[in-house]
Amino acid sequence: MRHIAFAGFLLLAAAAGTAQTGHWQPQPIAGATEPSEVVAHSAASDWRPIAPENLLVMDLADGGRIAIELAPEFAPVHVANIRRLAHAGWWQGASVYRVQDNYVAQWGQNDGGGTRPEGVVEHPPAEYERPTAGLSIHPLGYPDSYAAQAGFVDGWPVGTDPARGSAWLAHCYGAVGVGRDLAPDTGMGGELYAVIGQAPRHLDRNIAVVGRVIEGMPALSARPRGTGDLGFYQVDRGETPVPIRSIRLAADMPAAERPSYEVMRTDSEAFARYVTGRANRGGTFFNVPAGGVDLCNVNVPVRRRAAP
Amino acid sequence: MRHIAFAGFLLLAAAAGTAQTGHWQPQPIAGATEPSEVVAHSAASDWRPIAPENLLVMDLADGGRIAIELAPEFAPVHVANIRRLAHAGWWQGASVYRVQDNYVAQWGQNDGGGTRPEGVVEHPPAEYERPTAGLSIHPLGYPDSYAAQAGFVDGWPVGTDPARGSAWLAHCYGAVGVGRDLAPDTGMGGELYAVIGQAPRHLDRNIAVVGRVIEGMPALSARPRGTGDLGFYQVDRGETPVPIRSIRLAADMPAAERPSYEVMRTDSEAFARYVTGRANRGGTFFNVPAGGVDLCNVNVPVRRRAAP
Repeated sequence: MRHIAFAGFLLLAAAAGTAQTGHWQPQPIAGATEPSEVVAHSAASDWRPIAPENLLVMDLADGGRIAIELAPEFAPVHVANIRRLAHAGWWQGASVYRVQDNYVAQWGQNDGGGTRPEGVVEHPPAEYERPTAGLSIHPLGYPDSYAAQAGFVDGWPVGTDPARGSAWLAHCYGAVGVGRDLAPDTGMGGELYAVIGQAPRHLDRNIAVVGRVIEGMPALSARPRGTGDLGFYQVDRGETPVPIRSIRLAADMPAAERPSYEVMRTDSEAFARYVTGRANRGGTFFNVPAGGVDLCNVNVPVRRRAAP
Repeated sequence: MRHIAFAGFLLLAAAAGTAQTGHWQPQPIAGATEPSEVVAHSAASDWRPIAPENLLVMDLADGGRIAIELAPEFAPVHVANIRRLAHAGWWQGASVYRVQDNYVAQWGQNDGGGTRPEGVVEHPPAEYERPTAGLSIHPLGYPDSYAAQAGFVDGWPVGTDPARGSAWLAHCYGAVGVGRDLAPDTGMGGELYAVIGQAPRHLDRNIAVVGRVIEGMPALSARPRGTGDLGFYQVDRGETPVPIRSIRLAADMPAAERPSYEVMRTDSEAFARYVTGRANRGGTFFNVPAGGVDLCNVNVPVRRRAAP
């Protein structure tokens, strides 16, 4: 208990060090609780389950499985499209056809294919940002190089513009976005990509982010890079897109087969301590805690959940 | 010419928007020159060659080649060690034995091996940061979540602490650091790693960064991830470290075989425009320029150079 109270005190010190007025100077905290310790000692109430309607499961022909949490609060029309596409088996015959180093892996039909399932909106609105009204935002507490403020909403890393009352999902490692052609096209949701390198935050507010990979990243990030422009595989050079066996919504899977996950609640006190720990690594390895952390290096904890 | 003058004006506007006092607000610039255009129209004098003494060439048994620029201005004793180790063939029999997703790929002898070549300092000093005196720092011009100021020194992304007059190499994608045991050990230089994911800047000032990969990242980043703790390959599970064929200093290679590169001068006006372009992507694809960019998303341009 003393341990936790002490960490709470340190957290206040961290907030003071990140005042948004004046020249920002990191205020390193010695002895902050290690992030892994925060997770290990968290309470069940510090976590929220991921609903089967918001969980997309992609199985590749080579055995790889990627689990994606969808974000209907940020891109409702795109997410509804993706649920319908999955339900209709849209991605049968599709593949991972583009892997660009330090950028994205992309999948879908590429050249198009099949009849659009009923109810799928061909031209969704530009769900690139949304009003902050109604959102509970946990501020990161450290500067961001892309947004006036960075923080977390219900498990999602976001950029916000308090002046405009706007928030958007950040292109962190594992973020899943909707491929599109040139503006003002927003993409139907049939072509998706995941970030596999340094967060390309310049894509924020320019593309519909619909979720993030919560398990299985290596099945995308460790693939051979395509040698074509933008990392597209060049089939005539023997580079082979990996076929997709299926992309299913967990809600459409037999209950016994459904994977189940939970995400740390970013409005919990445990998460606040986790962020402080990420910003002030210590233990026997680190000499100097940073006193700051990038939005995309916080890595909101996700874990498997015993079936209910 | 008008084009360039216009870009110069915009650059001043960008600097004004990043005043370090007050609440930072991105100041997006419409019509900034695309980074690729800046590179395409740069002058020969905007580039500096990489000396063969500062170029390390790693060849893997599977045909992969990784080129690394060394940074003697930041870690002179470690770099001198690495040059001696390469000259002595220290890495014969070594391998890439650890690949941790969204973190690092690591190589060396792992369990140790061989006699330390003459002149190699077994316990180098902690070359984790250095005085800014004598350095020409080009400020990034946007906030950083780890340092009071971020910028560039002679082609290298750095964090700086103006109050202490200190600068250090940042752990960006491709940064090469020296593996070590627990503090105060700094590592001899025989075990090296490269960053293959979101910049782990919490390692800054805690490890000796000795260079960065300038070509061949996929030979490390696209490798299968190890399933052991910290991404170590589990040989007893059939995960195979890839053998290293050779690690050579370009200066030790026959002149005809030496690859040759040049780096954009970060003290050039072209580089200032390049940074502005990276912070304000436009063209036909982007709807909204960010008005900011992360230190590790600038990607200082490097290109092959015709043999002199």
